[in-house]
Amino acid sequence: MKEQSAAIGIDLGGTDIKAGLVDAAGAVLDRRTMPTDADSGPRRVLERLAALVRDLAESSRNAGTGAVAVGIGAPGTVRRRRGTVVAPPNLPGWKEVAVGEHVSAAAGLRVVLENDANAAAYGEFRRGAGVGCDDLVMLTLGTGIGGGVILGGRLWRGRHENAGETGHMIVAVDGRPCNCGQRGCLEAYASAANTAARAAERLASGKPTEGTSPLGDVMRCNGRIDATDVVDAARKGDPLARGVWDETCRYLAMACVNLKHLLNPQRIVLAGGMSAAGDDLLRPVRGHFGRLVWPDVGDRPEIVLASLGNDAGFVGAALLAMETVAAGGGA
Amino acid sequence: MKEQSAAIGIDLGGTDIKAGLVDAAGAVLDRRTMPTDADSGPRRVLERLAALVRDLAESSRNAGTGAVAVGIGAPGTVRRRRGTVVAPPNLPGWKEVAVGEHVSAAAGLRVVLENDANAAAYGEFRRGAGVGCDDLVMLTLGTGIGGGVILGGRLWRGRHENAGETGHMIVAVDGRPCNCGQRGCLEAYASAANTAARAAERLASGKPTEGTSPLGDVMRCNGRIDATDVVDAARKGDPLARGVWDETCRYLAMACVNLKHLLNPQRIVLAGGMSAAGDDLLRPVRGHFGRLVWPDVGDRPEIVLASLGNDAGFVGAALLAMETVAAGGGA
Repeated sequence: MKEQSAAIGIDLGGTDIKAGLVDAAGAVLDRRTMPTDADSGPRRVLERLAALVRDLAESSRNAGTGAVAVGIGAPGTVRRRRGTVVAPPNLPGWKEVAVGEHVSAAAGLRVVLENDANAAAYGEFRRGAGVGCDDLVMLTLGTGIGGGVILGGRLWRGRHENAGETGHMIVAVDGRPCNCGQRGCLEAYASAANTAARAAERLASGKPTEGTSPLGDVMRCNGRIDATDVVDAARKGDPLARGVWDETCRYLAMACVNLKHLLNPQRIVLAGGMSAAGDDLLRPVRGHFGRLVWPDVGDRPEIVLASLGNDAGFVGAALLAMETVAAGGGA
Repeated sequence: MKEQSAAIGIDLGGTDIKAGLVDAAGAVLDRRTMPTDADSGPRRVLERLAALVRDLAESSRNAGTGAVAVGIGAPGTVRRRRGTVVAPPNLPGWKEVAVGEHVSAAAGLRVVLENDANAAAYGEFRRGAGVGCDDLVMLTLGTGIGGGVILGGRLWRGRHENAGETGHMIVAVDGRPCNCGQRGCLEAYASAANTAARAAERLASGKPTEGTSPLGDVMRCNGRIDATDVVDAARKGDPLARGVWDETCRYLAMACVNLKHLLNPQRIVLAGGMSAAGDDLLRPVRGHFGRLVWPDVGDRPEIVLASLGNDAGFVGAALLAMETVAAGGGA
């Protein structure tokens, strides 16, 4: 009996490691999640990562599938050829860590590294919101804003493998400072963290009285607010929250206009934690897009929500690994 | 004796038609220029276009080269399969004109249509500022701002063949109105026409006295100014002109930052009439780019000037035609 071909996909995040056994069509055959425990340092994380891979490899053998490779989506800059993770901000103490070599030696499988946002975009492209299209740009709206660009069915990495940094396109010259060192980045306005920060700044400057602002009430009770609180308060009609959320959606729409004009992709996919707002995100982004963009000459992209949720990263990493190995690559 | 393969390239502009006989390596073997005389209407322009093609075909036979196809770069939206030019703003009265069919019938050669900015970008890529690189984005700075995107050695047209509209990326939300119907487009600030317009607006509002502003003097003498006057006056130290030109360069640099983050191309090429400013354009654009972009991690594109001048359009059109015909396409 011929074994079904599969790969192990890993999404190495600052908080959690999500992993799964994925077949050649992108279906998830088995899955695991565990805390990254990043503070324990790279050596300890790598040991647990290797154990996780061995565990999934055994699951693969038991299921009668042959895992041919491991794909790992890792944050920040990744040196794909060397198999190293450079210095991700959310994995403190990591510097040029040889993830590929370590996992490959421990599991006896070839390892393919990829930037995590690229892997997630590829996962959505192959198995999620991108099914049936040839090209898409994904905006991953989390604490920061990442992204990925798929053109003609292939992940576009660019000359220095740093393409898809959608969050650091500048939307306001001399605008809000961004963690990246620039000013006025899309991320500085429309990420979950900056949506919450903008709301908190307005609350602090406006000081709405108790009961007049659901968002102000959350701030008084919890001492902090996040983007979900902003969306919830906007739903309840809080004018301050509505204004902030609308601005987030407008900047996202402006980015969509720019993506449309530059690349004219078939789809733009909104992903990441903030996309859980669903229609409350999609409707205003589409609305602002229609108002900001030139008259419709039949050249508009579809703007849609991601559909794979937290699976996108490891599914994409696994599929990329299978394809890389089939083409003769991988560490 | 085997004939050398060549193609006829046409750059159909609102003012001039530039044409040439181009070999497979992009070298120009012969060339022609004639006024478009757009006011004479599509039928008359097509007749003269056909005569021009026959003339170059004869030149090709006399030179012992075999012209295998005609490539035509045309303004605005072009339906490549149908071979029609849709409704270019600078060719009044043109509506779905069947340029491909007409020229093909008259000259007995296959005709390949392409958007003019795409053709010029491809010409620079193959034979000009793009030699030695795999991907580039070109910003064509003329009356408006056009562009072209070359990725992995191929022209990227996008889903609805409307990619590369770099001039209509929004750089200022709710900014200056643009001819395209949007607000705050790159073109609305940094095109030659809008650089001149911004300077004229500032002159009108500030009213510098005679002799204090070289640019004001030009305006008083000629009743109008163009972008070249702004650059000249900036060179002479005119503070108003310097301010306007610096702003133009800063918006162009902002666009370069966004191109870098999204596509991470190897090169960004500045082309079109305004690129004649040379170092006076390149130096401030590079300077602003360095100030606007995140710290250098070795991922920056080269920002360079185009090198083919007015030849880029017909050279690119001819090369695209040769390749399309070799691949079995063309009208």
